[in-house]
Amino acid sequence: MDAKFMELAIKEAKKALKRDEVPIGAVIVSGGKVIAKGHNLTESKKIATRHAEMIAIEKASRRLKSWRLDGAEIYVTLEPCAMCAGAIVNARIKKVYFGAYEKKSGCAESKYPVLTDAGLNHSAEFVGGVEEERCSALIKNYFAAKRKEAKKISEIQP
Amino acid sequence: MDAKFMELAIKEAKKALKRDEVPIGAVIVSGGKVIAKGHNLTESKKIATRHAEMIAIEKASRRLKSWRLDGAEIYVTLEPCAMCAGAIVNARIKKVYFGAYEKKSGCAESKYPVLTDAGLNHSAEFVGGVEEERCSALIKNYFAAKRKEAKKISEIQP
Repeated sequence: MDAKFMELAIKEAKKALKRDEVPIGAVIVSGGKVIAKGHNLTESKKIATRHAEMIAIEKASRRLKSWRLDGAEIYVTLEPCAMCAGAIVNARIKKVYFGAYEKKSGCAESKYPVLTDAGLNHSAEFVGGVEEERCSALIKNYFAAKRKEAKKISEIQP
Repeated sequence: MDAKFMELAIKEAKKALKRDEVPIGAVIVSGGKVIAKGHNLTESKKIATRHAEMIAIEKASRRLKSWRLDGAEIYVTLEPCAMCAGAIVNARIKKVYFGAYEKKSGCAESKYPVLTDAGLNHSAEFVGGVEEERCSALIKNYFAAKRKEAKKISEIQP
């Protein structure tokens, strides 16, 4: 675990926030170097698959010219959903460091143990709760602001 | 269920086969019309996320200019993996028809019930085993040919 990589993932999450996206960021590291970064662009791109991890995995594969990211590590600010955990396994990523837990739908351990499932083609180690409070606060504040905004609109409209 | 859409998915799978990819195909239907098709391109693109379903979901979203594919149905020749089942849920697809079961890693029902999980943001209905034998034979024959090829090479090389 290298704290500076989670800082970079948080920086990515803040880029998503600037675009009014749910603030989630990811960074992929191979051989001690960052090889790809990504932030959530679901709303901007209008495509449900444009999560931070997916964007980073695709960039890393293009860079390495390989769908196998053997030995790579991913730092992500939120516990990956089923789609992203599945992509991490499919891409043979070695280890996942994530920030906030996603109790409802996270697929490292909260909902289904997709990452570590020994029955799948590959299993990835993970460490959860890295800079948990900061990663979690980013998302909570985003949704709190959204709710406030929605309340204001409903008060204006008769 | 409309048999002609699974035929189109099988046709997509055969396109993958022609490119020496694991033969899996998918078709997305909305309002009774095909709005997107896709076939597995993992090896050609060298990206682990290029499964048939992912390609079709992204095409459909671009076409409808929406990450929400409410009311849409997907026909796919193989039970979706965790990544694809997660993407189907994320994209709010209404119903999934799949061909062959993937006992080891399928996430409709074989491994984890990702599609129908009431705890996630959305749940999709599914029907498995549509044209099961043909869909399954395509994949089995592909891997049998690959094994034969590998055996030949090992016999040539000392």
